[in-house]
Formats: sequence, C-alpha cells, structure tokens
Amino acid sequence: MKEKGRPPYYEVIRDPLLRYMVRRLRLLWALEHAANLMSWDLETHMPREGIRDRSAALEEITALMHSIATSSWLREMIEAAQERLEELNDYEKGLVRVVAREVRIATALPEELVRREAKITAEATKVWEVARKRSDFNMFKPYLEQIVEIQREKAERLGYEDHPYDALLDLYEEGLRTRHVEEIFSKLVPATKKVLDEVRRRGFYPERHMLEDKEYDVDKAREMVRRLLGLLRFPLGERGRVDESAHPFTIDMGVYDVRITVRYEGRDFKRFVYSAVHEFGHALYELQQDPRLDQTPLVGGVSLGVHESQSRFWENIVGRGPWFMPELKRLADETIGLTRGVDLLELYRYVNTVRPDVIRVDADEVTYNLHIYLRFTLEKKLIEGSLRVDELPEAWNSLMEELLGVRPRNDAEGVLQDIHWSHGSIGYFPTYTLGNVIAAMIWRSLGGPDAEMLHRLDIPGLQEWLREKIHIWGKTYPPRTLVEKALGAPPTADALVEYLEWKYTRLPDKVEELLNPQR
Amino acid sequence: MKEKGRPPYYEVIRDPLLRYMVRRLRLLWALEHAANLMSWDLETHMPREGIRDRSAALEEITALMHSIATSSWLREMIEAAQERLEELNDYEKGLVRVVAREVRIATALPEELVRREAKITAEATKVWEVARKRSDFNMFKPYLEQIVEIQREKAERLGYEDHPYDALLDLYEEGLRTRHVEEIFSKLVPATKKVLDEVRRRGFYPERHMLEDKEYDVDKAREMVRRLLGLLRFPLGERGRVDESAHPFTIDMGVYDVRITVRYEGRDFKRFVYSAVHEFGHALYELQQDPRLDQTPLVGGVSLGVHESQSRFWENIVGRGPWFMPELKRLADETIGLTRGVDLLELYRYVNTVRPDVIRVDADEVTYNLHIYLRFTLEKKLIEGSLRVDELPEAWNSLMEELLGVRPRNDAEGVLQDIHWSHGSIGYFPTYTLGNVIAAMIWRSLGGPDAEMLHRLDIPGLQEWLREKIHIWGKTYPPRTLVEKALGAPPTADALVEYLEWKYTRLPDKVEELLNPQR
Repeated sequence: MKEKGRPPYYEVIRDPLLRYMVRRLRLLWALEHAANLMSWDLETHMPREGIRDRSAALEEITALMHSIATSSWLREMIEAAQERLEELNDYEKGLVRVVAREVRIATALPEELVRREAKITAEATKVWEVARKRSDFNMFKPYLEQIVEIQREKAERLGYEDHPYDALLDLYEEGLRTRHVEEIFSKLVPATKKVLDEVRRRGFYPERHMLEDKEYDVDKAREMVRRLLGLLRFPLGERGRVDESAHPFTIDMGVYDVRITVRYEGRDFKRFVYSAVHEFGHALYELQQDPRLDQTPLVGGVSLGVHESQSRFWENIVGRGPWFMPELKRLADETIGLTRGVDLLELYRYVNTVRPDVIRVDADEVTYNLHIYLRFTLEKKLIEGSLRVDELPEAWNSLMEELLGVRPRNDAEGVLQDIHWSHGSIGYFPTYTLGNVIAAMIWRSLGGPDAEMLHRLDIPGLQEWLREKIHIWGKTYPPRTLVEKALGAPPTADALVEYLEWKYTRLPDKVEELLNPQR
Repeated sequence: MKEKGRPPYYEVIRDPLLRYMVRRLRLLWALEHAANLMSWDLETHMPREGIRDRSAALEEITALMHSIATSSWLREMIEAAQERLEELNDYEKGLVRVVAREVRIATALPEELVRREAKITAEATKVWEVARKRSDFNMFKPYLEQIVEIQREKAERLGYEDHPYDALLDLYEEGLRTRHVEEIFSKLVPATKKVLDEVRRRGFYPERHMLEDKEYDVDKAREMVRRLLGLLRFPLGERGRVDESAHPFTIDMGVYDVRITVRYEGRDFKRFVYSAVHEFGHALYELQQDPRLDQTPLVGGVSLGVHESQSRFWENIVGRGPWFMPELKRLADETIGLTRGVDLLELYRYVNTVRPDVIRVDADEVTYNLHIYLRFTLEKKLIEGSLRVDELPEAWNSLMEELLGVRPRNDAEGVLQDIHWSHGSIGYFPTYTLGNVIAAMIWRSLGGPDAEMLHRLDIPGLQEWLREKIHIWGKTYPPRTLVEKALGAPPTADALVEYLEWKYTRLPDKVEELLNPQR
C-alpha cells in the first residue's frame, strides 16, 4: 500500500486514522469512477446489444460498493473518529460526516430491499416507456404502486422526525426537510402567479417566437456548441468532452475528466444551446473542485440542489440574460446562421418566451417551479398515504389547471410525462426548485440587478467567484451550511422572487441598455 | 443472490459447486469488463488529463482482481473440484483448468512483485518513448536491466521444467514451451530464406509499389473502413464499434460488445485496410463465442497465439489473397478512389510487397517471422543469463544482418523499435509466429491451394467454419488441444512453410485465374 510520494489529500486530511480510511476507500472511489464511465458509455457509445452484459456488470459493481459501505471495519473507523470530532479540522469533520451518512444509508437499506427496488424499477422504466407512448396510466399503475410502497418502506427504515417524506428528500439533498420546501413554495407560488399575470398583461415576453420553427443543420449546431463551450472556457480535450445522447447529462470521472452530452433535435436552436449551457454549469462545479480532495469521499458536488443551482445559474441567469445576447448572436451567425438579420432584442425575446404549458421540461423560468410544486404536493401525499396511486391522474390534472390554467389532454401529457418515478426517485423533484432558489441567491450576492460581472459578461470572474465560494469545498460542508457560508443565509425564496420580479416586470423597460455588455 | 431465471451457463456448467463458483466469480468478470472499458476509453476518448485518475482507478481495480484470484475460498473450491475431475464434462473441466491456472499465477506472484513490476514498467514506457526518439539505448538500458531481472524472478516463482523462459511463454500461451518454439523455427527459418531468395529471383512480388506514396482523404478512408467491415459482416452498432487510436487494437466487454480501432496515416492505404481486417479477425473470435459461456471464466479467446491466428488468417490469407482483390478494388474505387485504373493484378502486387527491412511492424508475410525469431533468440538468452542487456544492441544488429541482410542504422531502428519490453512483456513475441503457424494450418484444413471457400470468397462460410471449429469453445480446451481438435495436429511449421512456398513461388504462375472469385 505504499504511495509514490504523499497523496494530495494529505494536505487537508491530517488525522492518521482518517488518512488510512481514505486510502482504503480509494477502492470505492475507483468503483464509482468505473461505474460512471460504464453509464456514460451506455448512453453515448455502447453498441446496442452491449446492454446485456453492461447491466450485469453494473449490478455486480454496485453490489460490491454497497458491501464496502456496510462493512464493519468502516463503521468502526467512523465511530472511532466521531468520538474525537472536536480535534478535527473542517475537511476531516466533513469526511466523517459524508462517510457516516453513506454508511448510515447503506446500512439502513438491506440488500434485499435494494435488489427488490432495482428489479421493480428496471421493469417499471420499460413499462413506463410503453405506457407513455400509449398514454395509458393503468398499465403503469401497478408498478407505481409497488414503487410508492418501497419508498414508504425506505422512509421507515431510514427514519425521520416529522414526516416520512423527509427521509426521501434527505437522500437527494442532505438536511432538506418537508417544512423547508413548504416554506419556499408558500412564498414562491403566489409570487410566481403575480409575475405570470404581469408578463401576460405586458406582452413583452412572448408565448411563442417564430425562431422556434427554424430548422438548423446539425453539423453546424455541433460547431456552435464547440464554440459556445470555448466561450465558456470548458476545457474540451484537456479535461472535458462533449458527446450526444437521448437525454443530456453531465458525468465525471474525477476532477480531471468531466463529460457533458447534448441532443440535437433539428429545430428551435435555443433548446440545444441552453441544454449545453446547463450541463456546462454542472460540469464547472466538478471541474473547479479543490484538487486536494480528488480520490477522496469529499470530492464532487455536495447535493443535487447545489448542483442544479450551478446549471441554472449559467443557463438562466448568465445565458438567458440580456448580457449574453451579443455573444449568442455572434456564435449563431457564424455557425447555424439563423440569427442573421435578427436584432439582439428579438433574440432576447426568443430565448425568454413564457408559456404556461403542461410539460415540465419545456417550461420557462417563470412557470417551472409551479411544475415542481405540483409534483412535491402529490409526492408528499403519496408517501404520507393521503393520496392513492389510482387517484393520481385526476389529482395531477386538477392541480395543473389550478396552478397553470392548462389541463393535460391525456396521461402522456400529464402524470406519465416524467421518467423519475419509474426510477424510484420520489423526493428528487424539489431539488430542481432548490437549485433555482440558490441560483437566484448567487445572483443577489453578485449584486442583483446591478451585478457588475453579469453586466460585463465577465466569464472568468464569475467562474472564479463560484470556485472560491462554492466549488472548491466539494462535500466539506453540508449543503445548507455551504449555502449559508457562501451566500449569507440558508435557502429561502426571497432572492428568487426578487429575481423573477426584476427580470419579468422591471427589466423590460431598460433591457436595451443591458443588451451590450459594458466591457 | 437470486437469479431471474437460470443463467445461460447452467446449460453447460451442471456441477452445483462449479455453478456457485461461477456466480461468485461474476464480480471478477464485471471488474474485467470495467477495466477493459476503462482501457478502451483511455486510448480513444478520454480527455488528456483524465489519465491522472484513470491510472489510479485501474490500479485499484487490478489489485482487487488480484486479491479475488488469491482468495482462500476460491483456492478451496478449485481443490474440491479437482478431486473429482473425472465426474465433470468438458466445459466443467475447462473451467477448473482456467480458474486453477489464474489462481496459480496470481498466487505465485506476490503483490509486492506485481506492484514493483507495474511501477518500473510505467516509468520504463515513458523513458522508452524518449529513448527511441533520441535513438539512445543507454537511456533505456537501466530500466530494461531491471525488467529482465523482474522477469527472471517471475520465472523462478512461477516454476518451469526445462527452461526459465518456459514460465514466461506460458503466461501468454498456456502450454507453450521453448522447445516448441525452437522446433517451429528450426524448419521455418531456413524455409523462409529459400522462399525469400525465390521471391527476389523472380521479381513478381515487388519490393515497393507506387501506390504506397498515394495520399488519401481520411474521411473517405473512414467510409471505406465502414464498408469493408460491412463486407466482413462486422455487426457495427449492434455488437461492435470502430474508433481511432494511436495503435490499433481490439477489446471486448463480453460477447455482445466488441470494439476495434484503426489509425489513418494519410498515405499507403493498404496499411489501414489490413490493420482493420486484422483487428476484425480478433473481434470475430470474441463475437462468435458460445453465448452460454458469457459471464463465466470460459468466455474469450483461449490464448494470444490462437487469437493472432484469427487476425492473421483474415488479414493475410483472406485479405491479401487474390480472391479479395475485386472487393478491395470496388471498395477503394467507391471511396478513396486511388485504385481507379489500377488492375486487379497490380492491386494484388501492391498489397503483397516483400521487402526485407529492419522494422517488424512494417514486415510482410515472408519476412515477418524472421523478426520474431530474432526476438525469441535474444529474449531466451537474456532470461537464461547468457546475454547481458548491454550486449543487446550489437547482438540485435548482427542477427538482423544475418537473417535479413539489413542492418539497423541506429538503436531506434533496431533494439528500441518495439514497446513490448518496456511493458515487461518478455515471452510474448513468439505468439505472433504461432498465430501465423495456426493461420496456415487453418488454410491447409480448408483445402490449401484448392480451398473452395477462399476461391469463392465465401465470407459467411469461412466465419461459420471458424465458429464451429474454434471460436465457439472459448477457453474450454487448452490452446494446443484446441488446435489439435480443430485442425488435426498440434502446431508445427509444416503448413506455414507449405503456404509460403505456394503463395510466393507457385501462385505467381496462375494468379490471374484466382483474381476473380468463382461464385
């Protein structure tokens, strides 16, 4: 077990026992590295029939990771470290917290339950695909019933103080509770409705734009994405890749290899542009980790909510801001060409359409969180047992109509639209809104309406700011603590409400002056 | 550990203990699957800096594989199975043999030695690259000395009957002994020299061809490779991929996902054509395994020699035969276009130049085995201690001159030309000639000069023949037994001598009639 020189984490992990633990956990890190590459390949390059062996190989590796996380030596080490927490530095405390949490979750969920969930969700995902195509909720219903039961069982095994849904939320966002989410929505939902009314009254932000129908050449779109990533200083070839997949995603094999994917649909170019900027935001978070945390359990984004705040910040606040329009036009002019003769104001209106619609993934900044509120409300009821799965489609459609004024014409447009539940991911959706909340808090910390770095489109400056405040810490602090440390307060809806009111009700009057960055 | 239905290997592995062993070894299979994907990605797609984490992750996974192979439960299971070998069927016997061999090798080589070898070879490979560039053997010498010492230590630990080199040969080719290799070369070397004299006397096969200098368009070359692989029925997209890398290779993630790579140098198109056909031959061997062996230790090519026989058969005997010329011309005419106006006879002479030269990888069918004989002779002496590393360059150059009549002008052209020794691969080279030997035995089994399936270029027929005789068995039989079973005798030089004499001294008189397949 000799090392060539001292590993970089020796600079931050000084406790001998914890150094030894990190060394032993390097296998777990390596297995995750391998599993991530296997998942990336599965979505991008794998020959079709390769799935037969890939699933089996991933299953073996996941089971091994689970057995390491539940091993007695690891539990004993963590218990020994917990006895003298006060002697440890912040990184070491973080290490103990992160590993203890993984051990606790892995230990609470017996292998039998994990296998049962893996089996039913694998089947459910296939059934969901067909059910959505046929718009037939009844096909999917028995699977969803089993999945809800399993999630309720997981909640009981994991434990919670107030609400069983807390236990599920915590799986995706350490420390997030139902009451936190309720508090956010209690302000955000009415404020959003007011902003939406104002948007419709003024008509500055259109519901549709004629550029949506323009077709682009996919090869030229690829070139546009390469240049866009260049503008954003994504280290293509050095520490990053961009590939294509059915659903865009970001995945990392450590801080030196972070990969994103995009999808080209052939029309409405803002879709691939903002999907690429979104994934770039995720990737930047991984790329800007402190390299001394590499190969330790502390490396990587701390939670889904904080991760989503990074992607949303770049996508919506930087990329859909007026300051981004000159660069966007230049890139599009030089590649796909559809923007020649379109002025910056028109381009800004095209990338900022606001349209209450039934489909979440097509939703704009204003309406997006209402979709999440709908899912949060229904999930909470399913888990506490106050709503039955067979009542779900009607509950979905009614709440959709109440919130957005539109009603799905069928299950495919309604309750069957998302893949998440078929994967067993209940408690996941709220992290999307949390991401928007934190992104707006970053905007406010940067100066809000007067944020200099945005007005100047100072990309290196923004990256350095995010690196120092957030990225560099990895998982050292729990997400709420990190947000408080970096942005001055735990997540609340205030900044997001302020941002939406500013952008959608006040900015239209002075957008012209912001369309050109002041460099 | 419940299975969904019975795994496919239940049809061939019936012994309860062995079924349990295969189930437990599925983790080892999964780790190899992961390690293969990681290696493939490293050579093809990985961002440059990704190497920093990839090496560490591969090291962890390799160490884990080693610890499984040396675990006491596995050794005990194998010992229990060995006590009642006579009750087992051929697959089960093969399973016991293959696993016992892996356990024996892993156990004989202590982790300290494995790590020491990994460390020195990693450094040596980097030094070799620079040393070759500067043509400076003295730079590489201290590393090679350590590598030779480690190989000698490995031989002692692995054990042998006659010669320490036997222990190293056996690592790459189960059952191959120094005396087998000596016996092959004792016939092959003089026969080759005679063939070479005759080739030069007649002048039918040229030393150089003007097509070698023609430059091609790389995009069109890619298209040619896609069509070529289509002609060969390689299941691109379904069960295979083709990518690009600095050095072409084949790698598999099970029987449902087999990947090859090619390299485009911009001129002399036969190089990428035959490199692709060569890798295709390797890939076909993996693709045509019995799927019931999938996810067991029996799946995959049985040895390097048998693997090389498959690549060499397709590359040289099928692909460089007169029967292949019409298809090759059609593919080239339709893509890179350099063959328009070139007749089939001229194309045949272009792909079959014979030129004694100092570089192995550029060698033709006739001279290739002399390069291997040179390496075998020197390796054997290094391992037995009758040649010192510092005497190597002069010994190399003298023997090269004696065998091929050419003398390297410097170390880069001589002793530094191959990467193998820097990897610690001593005992590997003879499997290249063994591959040529077995490929020629296949040719003889197919009918030799009168092989119908070759004359008709019956690609499906040839594939089915190879599948039934060789591929389907995986590692069930040891390589010498497999060759004897499939081709009637253990490997001897006879067929290769017969093939070379036929192709290079008798075929020129009647090549015209074979240039068009008789379909």
